[in-house]
Amino acid sequence: MPFLKGHGTENDFVIIPDPDGVLDLPAGTVARLCDRRAGIGGDGLLRVVRSAAHPEARSMAGEAEWFMDYRNADGSVAEMCGNGVRVFARYLQRAGLAGADGLAVATRAGVRRVRLAGDGGVTVHMGAAKLPGGTETDVTVTVGERSWPALNVDMGNPHAVAFVDDLAHAGDLYTAPAVAPAAAYPEGVNVEFAVGRGPRHVALRVYERGSGETRSCGTGACAVMVAAARRDGADPAADGTPVTYTVDVPGGRLVITEHPDGGVEMTGPAVIVAEGTIDPGLLTLPEG
Amino acid sequence: MPFLKGHGTENDFVIIPDPDGVLDLPAGTVARLCDRRAGIGGDGLLRVVRSAAHPEARSMAGEAEWFMDYRNADGSVAEMCGNGVRVFARYLQRAGLAGADGLAVATRAGVRRVRLAGDGGVTVHMGAAKLPGGTETDVTVTVGERSWPALNVDMGNPHAVAFVDDLAHAGDLYTAPAVAPAAAYPEGVNVEFAVGRGPRHVALRVYERGSGETRSCGTGACAVMVAAARRDGADPAADGTPVTYTVDVPGGRLVITEHPDGGVEMTGPAVIVAEGTIDPGLLTLPEG
Repeated sequence: MPFLKGHGTENDFVIIPDPDGVLDLPAGTVARLCDRRAGIGGDGLLRVVRSAAHPEARSMAGEAEWFMDYRNADGSVAEMCGNGVRVFARYLQRAGLAGADGLAVATRAGVRRVRLAGDGGVTVHMGAAKLPGGTETDVTVTVGERSWPALNVDMGNPHAVAFVDDLAHAGDLYTAPAVAPAAAYPEGVNVEFAVGRGPRHVALRVYERGSGETRSCGTGACAVMVAAARRDGADPAADGTPVTYTVDVPGGRLVITEHPDGGVEMTGPAVIVAEGTIDPGLLTLPEG
Repeated sequence: MPFLKGHGTENDFVIIPDPDGVLDLPAGTVARLCDRRAGIGGDGLLRVVRSAAHPEARSMAGEAEWFMDYRNADGSVAEMCGNGVRVFARYLQRAGLAGADGLAVATRAGVRRVRLAGDGGVTVHMGAAKLPGGTETDVTVTVGERSWPALNVDMGNPHAVAFVDDLAHAGDLYTAPAVAPAAAYPEGVNVEFAVGRGPRHVALRVYERGSGETRSCGTGACAVMVAAARRDGADPAADGTPVTYTVDVPGGRLVITEHPDGGVEMTGPAVIVAEGTIDPGLLTLPEG
Protein backbone atom coordinates (compact mmCIF):
# COMPACT_ATOMS: atom_id res chain seq x y z
CA MET A 1 0.00 0.00 0.00
CA PRO A 2 1.51 3.36 -1.01
CA PHE A 3 1.75 6.12 1.59
CA LEU A 4 3.25 9.52 2.23
CA LYS A 5 3.99 11.32 5.45
CA GLY A 6 3.61 15.06 5.89
CA HIS A 7 2.88 17.79 8.39
CA GLY A 8 1.57 21.32 8.79
CA THR A 9 3.17 23.19 11.71
CA GLU A 10 4.10 19.73 13.08
CA ASN A 11 0.55 18.42 13.08
CA ASP A 12 1.44 15.26 11.16
CA PHE A 13 -0.42 12.82 8.97
CA VAL A 14 -0.15 9.53 7.18
CA ILE A 15 -1.46 10.13 3.65
CA ILE A 16 -3.00 7.20 1.78
CA PRO A 17 -3.73 7.79 -1.92
CA ASP A 18 -6.81 5.75 -2.85
CA PRO A 19 -8.33 7.55 -5.85
CA ASP A 20 -10.91 4.88 -6.58
CA GLY A 21 -11.89 4.30 -2.96
CA VAL A 22 -11.06 0.60 -3.04
CA LEU A 23 -9.09 0.29 0.20
CA ASP A 24 -10.57 -1.20 3.31
CA LEU A 25 -9.42 0.99 6.19
CA PRO A 26 -11.22 -0.07 9.36
CA ALA A 27 -10.45 1.82 12.58
CA GLY A 28 -7.99 -0.84 13.75
CA THR A 29 -5.90 -0.51 10.59
CA VAL A 30 -5.87 3.28 10.81
CA ALA A 31 -4.79 3.09 14.45
CA ARG A 32 -1.99 0.69 13.50
CA LEU A 33 -0.79 3.00 10.71
CA CYS A 34 -0.86 6.02 13.04
CA ASP A 35 0.93 4.20 15.88
CA ARG A 36 4.20 6.09 16.24
CA ARG A 37 6.29 3.09 17.27
CA ALA A 38 4.64 0.00 15.80
CA GLY A 39 3.41 1.75 12.63
CA ILE A 40 4.21 4.83 10.50
CA GLY A 41 3.04 7.41 13.03
CA GLY A 42 0.79 10.42 12.77
CA ASP A 43 -1.75 12.60 14.54
CA GLY A 44 -4.22 11.39 11.94
CA LEU A 45 -4.67 9.82 8.52
CA LEU A 46 -5.73 11.52 5.28
CA ARG A 47 -7.18 9.17 2.68
CA VAL A 48 -7.26 10.79 -0.77
CA VAL A 49 -10.36 9.60 -2.62
CA ARG A 50 -12.18 10.93 -5.67
CA SER A 51 -15.40 12.54 -4.40
CA ALA A 52 -17.34 10.57 -7.03
CA ALA A 53 -15.99 7.33 -5.55
CA HIS A 54 -17.03 7.98 -1.93
CA PRO A 55 -20.63 7.80 -0.71
CA GLU A 56 -20.11 10.67 1.77
CA ALA A 57 -18.69 12.95 -0.94
CA ARG A 58 -20.57 12.07 -4.13
CA SER A 59 -22.88 15.09 -3.81
CA MET A 60 -19.83 17.40 -3.71
CA ALA A 61 -18.16 15.85 -6.77
CA GLY A 62 -19.28 18.66 -9.08
CA GLU A 63 -17.56 21.27 -6.91
CA ALA A 64 -14.54 19.36 -5.60
CA GLU A 65 -12.87 16.45 -7.38
CA TRP A 66 -11.10 15.13 -4.25
CA PHE A 67 -12.48 14.10 -0.87
CA MET A 68 -10.41 14.25 2.32
CA ASP A 69 -11.42 11.15 4.27
CA TYR A 70 -9.93 12.32 7.57
CA ARG A 71 -9.42 9.93 10.48
CA ASN A 72 -8.14 10.53 13.96
CA ALA A 73 -5.17 8.49 15.17
CA ASP A 74 -7.52 6.07 16.95
CA GLY A 75 -9.28 5.39 13.65
CA SER A 76 -12.42 7.37 14.41
CA VAL A 77 -13.90 9.55 11.65
CA ALA A 78 -13.50 13.33 11.91
CA GLU A 79 -15.04 16.17 9.97
CA MET A 80 -12.26 18.62 9.22
CA CYS A 81 -8.73 19.54 10.20
CA GLY A 82 -7.24 22.88 9.21
CA ASN A 83 -3.66 21.63 9.24
CA GLY A 84 -4.69 18.39 7.53
CA VAL A 85 -6.42 20.07 4.62
CA ARG A 86 -3.26 22.08 3.85
CA VAL A 87 -1.20 18.89 3.77
CA PHE A 88 -3.93 17.23 1.67
CA ALA A 89 -3.73 20.07 -0.87
CA ARG A 90 0.07 19.92 -0.89
CA TYR A 91 -0.10 16.22 -1.73
CA LEU A 92 -2.50 16.88 -4.64
CA GLN A 93 -0.21 19.64 -5.92
CA ARG A 94 2.83 17.35 -5.73
CA ALA A 95 0.90 14.61 -7.56
CA GLY A 96 -0.06 17.05 -10.32
CA LEU A 97 -3.72 16.91 -9.32
CA ALA A 98 -4.23 20.54 -8.25
CA GLY A 99 -4.51 23.71 -10.28
CA ALA A 100 -1.61 26.18 -10.21
CA ASP A 101 -3.26 28.43 -7.66
CA GLY A 102 -5.39 26.04 -5.69
CA LEU A 103 -8.36 23.76 -5.62
CA ALA A 104 -11.56 22.90 -3.80
CA VAL A 105 -11.42 20.00 -1.33
CA ALA A 106 -14.50 18.05 -0.27
CA THR A 107 -14.57 17.37 3.49
CA ARG A 108 -17.21 16.04 5.87
CA ALA A 109 -17.71 19.70 6.89
CA GLY A 110 -18.38 20.72 3.27
CA VAL A 111 -16.28 22.00 0.39
CA ARG A 112 -13.21 24.04 1.37
CA ARG A 113 -11.36 26.27 -1.10
CA VAL A 114 -7.58 26.06 -0.74
CA ARG A 115 -4.99 28.43 -2.23
CA LEU A 116 -1.40 27.37 -2.89
CA ALA A 117 1.21 30.13 -2.78
CA GLY A 118 4.61 29.95 -4.40
CA ASP A 119 6.44 30.34 -1.09
CA GLY A 120 5.10 27.10 0.39
CA GLY A 121 2.20 28.67 2.24
CA VAL A 122 -1.23 27.12 1.88
CA THR A 123 -4.37 29.09 2.70
CA VAL A 124 -7.64 27.51 3.78
CA HIS A 125 -11.00 28.95 4.79
CA MET A 126 -11.84 27.85 8.30
CA GLY A 127 -15.39 29.21 8.56
CA ALA A 128 -16.59 31.89 10.96
CA ALA A 129 -16.04 32.13 14.71
CA LYS A 130 -19.00 32.33 17.09
CA LEU A 131 -18.74 33.83 20.56
CA PRO A 132 -21.38 32.06 22.69
CA GLY A 133 -20.76 34.44 25.61
CA GLY A 134 -20.14 37.54 23.51
CA THR A 135 -16.86 39.32 24.13
CA GLU A 136 -17.02 38.76 27.90
CA THR A 137 -14.23 36.55 29.25
CA ASP A 138 -16.79 34.75 31.38
CA VAL A 139 -15.20 31.32 31.67
CA THR A 140 -12.27 30.52 33.94
CA VAL A 141 -9.26 28.35 33.16
CA THR A 142 -7.26 26.99 36.11
CA VAL A 143 -3.87 25.25 36.24
CA GLY A 144 -2.57 24.49 39.73
CA GLU A 145 -2.69 27.69 41.81
CA ARG A 146 -3.29 30.01 38.85
CA SER A 147 -6.60 30.96 37.23
CA TRP A 148 -7.34 33.17 34.23
CA PRO A 149 -10.51 34.62 32.68
CA ALA A 150 -11.05 33.08 29.24
CA LEU A 151 -13.12 33.76 26.12
CA ASN A 152 -15.55 31.12 24.85
CA VAL A 153 -14.91 30.77 21.08
CA ASP A 154 -16.71 28.29 18.83
CA MET A 155 -14.87 27.45 15.59
CA GLY A 156 -17.18 24.54 14.84
CA ASN A 157 -15.55 23.00 17.91
CA PRO A 158 -15.36 24.56 21.38
CA HIS A 159 -12.45 26.62 22.71
CA ALA A 160 -11.55 28.51 25.88
CA VAL A 161 -8.87 31.16 25.20
CA ALA A 162 -6.96 32.54 28.19
CA PHE A 163 -4.39 35.32 27.85
CA VAL A 164 -1.52 34.72 30.27
CA ASP A 165 1.66 36.58 31.22
CA ASP A 166 3.93 33.67 30.34
CA LEU A 167 3.20 30.46 28.43
CA ALA A 168 5.26 28.58 31.04
CA HIS A 169 2.53 29.38 33.58
CA ALA A 170 0.41 26.69 31.90
CA GLY A 171 2.81 24.17 33.45
CA ASP A 172 3.57 20.75 31.98
CA LEU A 173 -0.03 20.19 30.76
CA TYR A 174 0.16 16.45 31.40
CA THR A 175 -3.49 16.68 32.40
CA ALA A 176 -6.36 18.83 31.18
CA PRO A 177 -6.69 22.34 32.64
CA ALA A 178 -9.86 22.88 34.68
CA VAL A 179 -12.50 25.01 32.92
CA ALA A 180 -15.52 26.51 34.72
CA PRO A 181 -18.44 26.62 34.47
CA ALA A 182 -18.52 23.08 33.06
CA ALA A 183 -22.00 23.82 31.68
CA ALA A 184 -20.44 26.20 29.12
CA TYR A 185 -18.89 23.18 27.36
CA PRO A 186 -21.18 20.15 27.42
CA GLU A 187 -18.98 18.38 24.81
CA GLY A 188 -15.67 19.22 26.49
CA VAL A 189 -13.32 21.98 25.41
CA ASN A 190 -9.97 22.74 23.81
CA VAL A 191 -7.97 25.17 25.95
CA GLU A 192 -5.57 27.75 24.53
CA PHE A 193 -3.05 29.80 26.52
CA ALA A 194 -1.97 32.91 24.63
CA VAL A 195 0.54 35.72 25.06
CA GLY A 196 1.13 38.87 23.05
CA ARG A 197 4.37 38.98 21.08
CA GLY A 198 3.93 42.39 19.45
CA PRO A 199 1.38 44.32 17.38
CA ARG A 200 -1.02 41.80 15.74
CA HIS A 201 1.29 38.98 16.83
CA VAL A 202 0.52 36.33 19.45
CA ALA A 203 1.87 32.95 20.52
CA LEU A 204 -0.02 30.04 22.07
CA ARG A 205 0.05 26.63 23.65
CA VAL A 206 -2.95 24.36 23.27
CA TYR A 207 -4.44 21.44 25.18
CA GLU A 208 -6.71 19.50 22.80
CA ARG A 209 -9.54 17.50 24.34
CA GLY A 210 -8.78 13.83 23.87
CA SER A 211 -5.20 14.42 22.73
CA GLY A 212 -3.38 16.49 25.37
CA GLU A 213 -0.91 19.23 24.50
CA THR A 214 -0.13 19.32 20.78
CA ARG A 215 2.33 21.15 18.54
CA SER A 216 -0.46 22.84 16.62
CA CYS A 217 -4.24 23.09 16.43
CA GLY A 218 -5.68 24.97 13.45
CA THR A 219 -9.05 25.84 14.97
CA GLY A 220 -7.30 26.71 18.24
CA ALA A 221 -5.02 29.16 16.44
CA CYS A 222 -8.08 30.75 14.77
CA ALA A 223 -9.87 30.97 18.14
CA VAL A 224 -6.85 32.73 19.64
CA MET A 225 -6.65 35.12 16.68
CA VAL A 226 -10.30 36.11 17.12
CA ALA A 227 -9.89 36.48 20.91
CA ALA A 228 -6.79 38.62 20.39
CA ALA A 229 -8.57 40.83 17.85
CA ARG A 230 -11.51 41.45 20.22
CA ARG A 231 -9.09 42.12 23.09
CA ASP A 232 -7.35 44.68 20.84
CA GLY A 233 -10.69 46.29 19.97
CA ALA A 234 -10.80 44.95 16.38
CA ASP A 235 -14.03 43.47 14.99
CA PRO A 236 -14.00 43.08 11.17
CA ALA A 237 -17.79 42.67 10.98
CA ALA A 238 -18.33 46.00 12.78
CA ASP A 239 -15.30 47.79 11.32
CA GLY A 240 -15.76 46.61 7.72
CA THR A 241 -12.01 45.92 7.52
CA PRO A 242 -10.20 42.57 7.59
CA VAL A 243 -7.67 42.07 10.37
CA THR A 244 -4.62 39.82 10.20
CA TYR A 245 -2.55 38.30 13.01
CA THR A 246 0.61 36.24 13.08
CA VAL A 247 -0.02 33.30 15.41
CA ASP A 248 2.97 31.28 16.62
CA VAL A 249 2.17 27.72 17.66
CA PRO A 250 4.78 25.37 19.19
CA GLY A 251 5.22 23.68 15.78
CA GLY A 252 5.55 26.77 13.60
CA ARG A 253 3.88 29.95 12.42
CA LEU A 254 0.41 30.62 11.04
CA VAL A 255 -1.02 33.82 9.56
CA ILE A 256 -4.73 34.25 10.19
CA THR A 257 -7.14 36.80 8.74
CA GLU A 258 -10.70 37.49 9.85
CA HIS A 259 -12.86 39.10 7.14
CA PRO A 260 -15.82 41.44 7.50
CA ASP A 261 -18.15 38.62 6.43
CA GLY A 262 -16.93 36.64 9.47
CA GLY A 263 -14.86 34.18 7.46
CA VAL A 264 -11.51 33.20 8.95
CA GLU A 265 -8.62 32.28 6.62
CA MET A 266 -5.54 30.47 7.87
CA THR A 267 -2.23 30.39 5.97
CA GLY A 268 0.63 28.11 6.94
CA PRO A 269 3.21 25.64 5.74
CA ALA A 270 2.43 22.14 4.48
CA VAL A 271 5.30 19.73 3.91
CA ILE A 272 5.61 16.20 2.52
CA VAL A 273 8.62 14.55 4.18
CA ALA A 274 8.63 11.02 2.74
CA GLU A 275 6.81 8.58 0.53
CA GLY A 276 6.93 4.85 0.06
CA THR A 277 5.06 1.63 0.57
CA ILE A 278 3.68 0.02 3.70
CA ASP A 279 4.63 -3.58 4.43
CA PRO A 280 1.61 -5.86 3.98
CA GLY A 281 2.37 -7.41 7.38
CA LEU A 282 1.36 -4.16 9.10
CA LEU A 283 -2.07 -4.31 7.48
CA THR A 284 -2.81 -7.98 8.13
CA LEU A 285 -1.88 -8.21 11.81
CA PRO A 286 -4.66 -9.67 13.95
CA GLU A 287 -6.69 -7.14 15.94
CA GLY A 288 -6.01 -6.60 19.63
CA MET B 1 17.46 9.22 0.20
CA PRO B 2 16.03 5.71 0.67
CA PHE B 3 14.82 4.70 4.12
CA LEU B 4 12.90 2.01 5.97
CA LYS B 5 11.09 2.09 9.27
CA GLY B 6 11.00 -0.84 11.66
CA HIS B 7 10.73 -1.79 15.30
CA GLY B 8 11.57 -4.47 17.85
CA THR B 9 9.02 -4.66 20.68
CA GLU B 10 8.03 -1.11 19.70
CA ASN B 11 11.52 0.30 20.08
CA ASP B 12 11.50 1.93 16.64
CA PHE B 13 14.13 3.02 14.17
CA VAL B 14 14.68 4.87 10.94
CA ILE B 15 16.92 2.62 8.80
CA ILE B 16 19.18 4.28 6.23
CA PRO B 17 20.91 1.91 3.79
CA ASP B 18 24.28 3.43 2.88
CA PRO B 19 26.45 0.46 1.86
CA ASP B 20 29.35 2.56 0.64
CA GLY B 21 29.28 5.01 3.53
CA VAL B 22 28.83 8.04 1.31
CA LEU B 23 26.04 9.83 3.16
CA ASP B 24 26.66 12.84 5.32
CA LEU B 25 24.52 12.37 8.43
CA PRO B 26 25.40 15.09 10.95
CA ALA B 27 23.56 15.09 14.29
CA GLY B 28 21.10 17.74 13.13
CA THR B 29 20.01 15.66 10.15
CA VAL B 30 19.60 12.54 12.29
CA ALA B 31 17.51 14.50 14.79
CA ARG B 32 15.33 15.81 11.96
CA LEU B 33 14.80 12.31 10.56
CA CYS B 34 13.92 10.95 14.04
CA ASP B 35 11.55 13.82 14.84
CA ARG B 36 8.16 12.13 15.15
CA ARG B 37 6.14 15.05 13.80
CA ALA B 38 8.40 17.05 11.50
CA GLY B 39 10.34 14.01 10.21
CA ILE B 40 9.96 10.24 9.88
CA GLY B 41 10.09 9.45 13.59
CA GLY B 42 12.06 6.93 15.61
CA ASP B 43 13.79 6.21 18.91
CA GLY B 44 17.00 6.10 16.91
CA LEU B 45 18.56 5.69 13.49
CA LEU B 46 20.39 2.65 12.08
CA ARG B 47 22.72 3.44 9.21
CA VAL B 48 23.67 0.26 7.31
CA VAL B 49 27.28 0.57 6.11
CA ARG B 50 29.79 -2.00 4.89
CA SER B 51 32.34 -2.44 7.68
CA ALA B 52 35.12 -1.97 5.13
CA ALA B 53 33.69 1.43 4.23
CA HIS B 54 33.54 2.87 7.77
CA PRO B 55 36.63 3.95 9.72
CA GLU B 56 35.18 2.75 13.05
CA ALA B 57 34.43 -0.73 11.64
CA ARG B 58 37.22 -1.47 9.18
CA SER B 59 39.08 -3.66 11.68
CA MET B 60 35.94 -5.85 12.06
CA ALA B 61 35.38 -6.25 8.30
CA GLY B 62 36.89 -9.76 8.25
CA GLU B 63 34.37 -11.00 10.82
CA ALA B 64 31.29 -8.94 10.01
CA GLU B 65 30.48 -7.52 6.58
CA TRP B 66 28.00 -4.94 7.88
CA PHE B 67 28.39 -2.18 10.47
CA MET B 68 25.48 -0.82 12.49
CA ASP B 69 26.14 2.92 12.76
CA TYR B 70 23.64 3.51 15.58
CA ARG B 71 22.50 7.01 16.51
CA ASN B 72 20.20 8.20 19.25
CA ALA B 73 17.20 10.31 18.29
CA ASP B 74 19.12 13.49 19.15
CA GLY B 75 21.83 12.51 16.66
CA SER B 76 24.43 11.48 19.22
CA VAL B 77 26.47 8.32 18.59
CA ALA B 78 25.68 5.20 20.64
CA GLU B 79 27.48 1.89 20.99
CA MET B 80 24.82 -0.81 20.84
CA CYS B 81 21.10 -1.36 21.07
CA GLY B 82 19.69 -4.85 21.56
CA ASN B 83 16.38 -4.05 19.89
CA GLY B 84 18.14 -2.12 17.14
CA VAL B 85 20.51 -4.92 16.19
CA ARG B 86 17.56 -7.28 15.68
CA VAL B 87 15.88 -4.78 13.37
CA PHE B 88 19.23 -4.22 11.62
CA ALA B 89 19.54 -7.98 11.00
CA ARG B 90 15.95 -8.19 9.79
CA TYR B 91 16.68 -5.47 7.24
CA LEU B 92 19.76 -7.34 5.96
CA GLN B 93 17.72 -10.55 5.68
CA ARG B 94 14.98 -8.74 3.75
CA ALA B 95 17.57 -7.20 1.43
CA GLY B 96 19.08 -10.64 0.78
CA LEU B 97 22.29 -9.68 2.58
CA ALA B 98 22.15 -12.18 5.48
CA GLY B 99 22.75 -15.92 5.60
CA ALA B 100 19.75 -18.20 6.05
CA ASP B 101 20.38 -18.65 9.76
CA GLY B 102 22.02 -15.42 10.72
CA LEU B 103 25.02 -13.19 10.47
CA ALA B 104 27.60 -11.26 12.41
CA VAL B 105 27.02 -7.52 12.84
CA ALA B 106 29.79 -5.05 13.59
CA THR B 107 28.83 -2.51 16.27
CA ARG B 108 30.74 0.07 18.28
CA ALA B 109 30.62 -2.46 21.15
CA GLY B 110 32.24 -5.15 18.96
CA VAL B 111 30.96 -7.91 16.70
CA ARG B 112 27.57 -9.39 17.63
CA ARG B 113 26.36 -12.73 16.26
CA VAL B 114 22.66 -12.67 15.33
CA ARG B 115 20.44 -15.71 14.60
CA LEU B 116 17.29 -15.44 12.49
CA ALA B 117 14.53 -17.95 13.26
CA GLY B 118 11.75 -18.92 10.87
CA ASP B 119 9.03 -17.66 13.20
CA GLY B 120 10.16 -14.05 13.08
CA GLY B 121 12.25 -14.18 16.23
CA VAL B 122 15.76 -12.76 16.14
CA THR B 123 18.35 -13.75 18.74
CA VAL B 124 21.27 -11.57 19.73
CA HIS B 125 24.07 -11.98 22.27
CA MET B 126 23.93 -9.15 24.76
CA GLY B 127 27.14 -9.89 26.70
CA ALA B 128 27.33 -10.79 30.38
CA ALA B 129 25.70 -9.09 33.34
CA LYS B 130 27.81 -7.79 36.21
CA LEU B 131 26.42 -7.26 39.71
CA PRO B 132 28.46 -4.42 41.24
CA GLY B 133 26.83 -4.99 44.67
CA GLY B 134 26.59 -8.77 44.41
CA THR B 135 23.11 -10.22 44.88
CA GLU B 136 22.23 -7.76 47.66
CA THR B 137 19.36 -5.44 46.79
CA ASP B 138 21.33 -2.57 48.29
CA VAL B 139 20.02 0.34 46.28
CA THR B 140 16.64 1.97 46.84
CA VAL B 141 14.18 3.16 44.21
CA THR B 142 11.53 5.68 45.27
CA VAL B 143 8.40 6.94 43.51
CA GLY B 144 6.21 9.28 45.54
CA GLU B 145 5.45 7.66 48.91
CA ARG B 146 6.69 4.20 47.93
CA SER B 147 10.24 2.83 48.07
CA TRP B 148 11.63 -0.55 47.02
CA PRO B 149 14.98 -2.31 47.45
CA ALA B 150 16.63 -2.76 44.04
CA LEU B 151 19.46 -4.77 42.50
CA ASN B 152 22.36 -2.99 40.80
CA VAL B 153 22.89 -4.72 37.42
CA ASP B 154 25.46 -3.64 34.84
CA MET B 155 24.72 -4.76 31.27
CA GLY B 156 27.39 -2.48 29.83
CA ASN B 157 25.07 0.27 31.01
CA PRO B 158 23.75 0.76 34.56
CA HIS B 159 20.41 -0.55 35.85
CA ALA B 160 18.47 -0.58 39.12
CA VAL B 161 15.89 -3.40 39.15
CA ALA B 162 13.08 -3.19 41.72
CA PHE B 163 10.50 -5.93 42.16
CA VAL B 164 7.11 -4.41 42.95
CA ASP B 165 3.64 -5.76 43.75
CA ASP B 166 1.97 -3.95 40.88
CA LEU B 167 3.50 -2.14 37.86
CA ALA B 168 0.95 0.64 38.39
CA HIS B 169 2.74 1.51 41.65
CA ALA B 170 5.48 3.10 39.52
CA GLY B 171 2.95 5.84 38.74
CA ASP B 172 2.94 7.91 35.56
CA LEU B 173 6.77 8.07 35.35
CA TYR B 174 6.72 11.56 33.87
CA THR B 175 9.88 12.18 35.85
CA ALA B 176 12.80 9.97 36.82
CA PRO B 177 12.38 7.77 39.91
CA ALA B 178 14.77 8.63 42.75
CA VAL B 179 17.61 6.13 43.21
CA ALA B 180 19.84 6.05 46.31
CA PRO B 181 22.70 6.08 47.01
CA ALA B 182 23.49 8.35 44.07
CA ALA B 183 27.14 7.30 44.35
CA ALA B 184 26.19 3.82 43.08
CA TYR B 185 25.48 5.33 39.67
CA PRO B 186 27.90 8.13 38.80
CA GLU B 187 26.73 8.08 35.14
CA GLY B 188 23.00 7.98 35.98
CA VAL B 189 20.86 4.86 35.86
CA ASN B 190 18.05 3.12 33.99
CA VAL B 191 15.32 2.01 36.38
CA GLU B 192 13.22 -1.15 35.90
CA PHE B 193 10.08 -2.05 37.81
CA ALA B 194 9.34 -5.77 37.61
CA VAL B 195 6.58 -8.15 38.69
CA GLY B 196 6.33 -11.93 38.53
CA ARG B 197 3.81 -13.31 36.06
CA GLY B 198 4.42 -17.03 36.66
CA PRO B 199 7.31 -19.51 36.75
CA ARG B 200 10.27 -18.02 34.83
CA HIS B 201 7.99 -15.26 33.56
CA VAL B 202 8.19 -11.58 34.50
CA ALA B 203 6.88 -8.26 33.21
CA LEU B 204 8.45 -4.83 33.49
CA ARG B 205 8.23 -1.12 32.97
CA VAL B 206 11.38 0.88 32.35
CA TYR B 207 12.50 4.46 32.81
CA GLU B 208 15.51 5.07 30.55
CA ARG B 209 17.93 7.80 31.57
CA GLY B 210 17.68 10.61 29.06
CA SER B 211 14.53 9.20 27.42
CA GLY B 212 11.86 8.68 30.07
CA GLU B 213 9.52 5.70 30.10
CA THR B 214 9.85 3.63 26.92
CA ARG B 215 8.01 0.70 25.35
CA SER B 216 11.07 -1.52 25.51
CA CYS B 217 14.71 -1.52 26.59
CA GLY B 218 16.80 -4.54 25.60
CA THR B 219 19.49 -4.19 28.24
CA GLY B 220 16.80 -3.39 30.82
CA ALA B 221 14.95 -6.61 29.98
CA CYS B 222 18.21 -8.56 30.36
CA ALA B 223 18.93 -6.85 33.70
CA VAL B 224 15.46 -7.81 34.93
CA MET B 225 15.92 -11.40 33.76
CA VAL B 226 19.20 -11.70 35.67
CA ALA B 227 17.67 -10.09 38.78
CA ALA B 228 14.68 -12.44 38.59
CA ALA B 229 16.94 -15.48 38.24
CA ARG B 230 19.00 -14.51 41.30
CA ARG B 231 15.80 -13.80 43.24
CA ASP B 232 14.56 -17.29 42.27
CA GLY B 233 17.88 -18.82 43.37
CA ALA B 234 19.13 -19.55 39.84
CA ASP B 235 22.73 -18.75 38.89
CA PRO B 236 23.86 -20.39 35.63
CA ALA B 237 27.55 -19.83 36.35
CA ALA B 238 27.26 -21.67 39.68
CA ASP B 239 24.65 -24.22 38.57
CA GLY B 240 26.23 -25.06 35.20
CA THR B 241 22.78 -24.87 33.58
CA PRO B 242 21.33 -22.16 31.37
CA VAL B 243 18.16 -20.50 32.60
CA THR B 244 15.48 -18.94 30.39
CA TYR B 245 12.82 -16.35 31.25
CA THR B 246 9.97 -14.84 29.31
CA VAL B 247 10.13 -11.06 29.84
CA ASP B 248 7.11 -8.98 28.89
CA VAL B 249 7.85 -5.34 28.09
CA PRO B 250 5.13 -2.78 27.34
CA GLY B 251 5.83 -3.15 23.60
CA GLY B 252 5.88 -6.95 23.37
CA ARG B 253 7.57 -10.11 24.57
CA LEU B 254 11.22 -11.10 24.82
CA VAL B 255 12.74 -14.47 25.71
CA ILE B 256 16.05 -14.19 27.52
CA THR B 257 18.56 -16.92 28.39
CA GLU B 258 21.57 -16.62 30.68
CA HIS B 259 24.28 -19.21 29.97
CA PRO B 260 26.81 -20.75 32.36
CA ASP B 261 29.59 -18.73 30.71
CA GLY B 262 27.69 -15.58 31.76
CA GLY B 263 26.50 -14.71 28.25
CA VAL B 264 22.98 -13.38 27.97
CA GLU B 265 20.99 -14.06 24.78
CA MET B 266 17.84 -12.13 23.93
CA THR B 267 15.23 -13.32 21.40
CA GLY B 268 12.43 -11.14 20.17
CA PRO B 269 10.53 -9.86 17.16
CA ALA B 270 11.93 -7.48 14.55
CA VAL B 271 9.59 -5.98 12.01
CA ILE B 272 9.99 -3.71 8.97
CA VAL B 273 6.78 -1.70 8.56
CA ALA B 274 7.50 0.55 5.58
CA GLU B 275 10.09 1.65 3.06
CA GLY B 276 10.43 4.54 0.72
CA THR B 277 12.33 7.71 0.00
CA ILE B 278 12.85 10.82 2.08
CA ASP B 279 12.05 14.17 0.53
CA PRO B 280 15.26 16.14 -0.15
CA GLY B 281 13.66 19.14 1.57
CA LEU B 282 13.84 17.36 4.92
CA LEU B 283 17.61 16.94 4.55
CA THR B 284 18.43 20.43 3.39
CA LEU B 285 16.51 22.51 5.93
CA PRO B 286 18.67 25.06 7.68
CA GLU B 287 19.79 24.12 11.19
CA GLY B 288 17.93 25.48 14.21
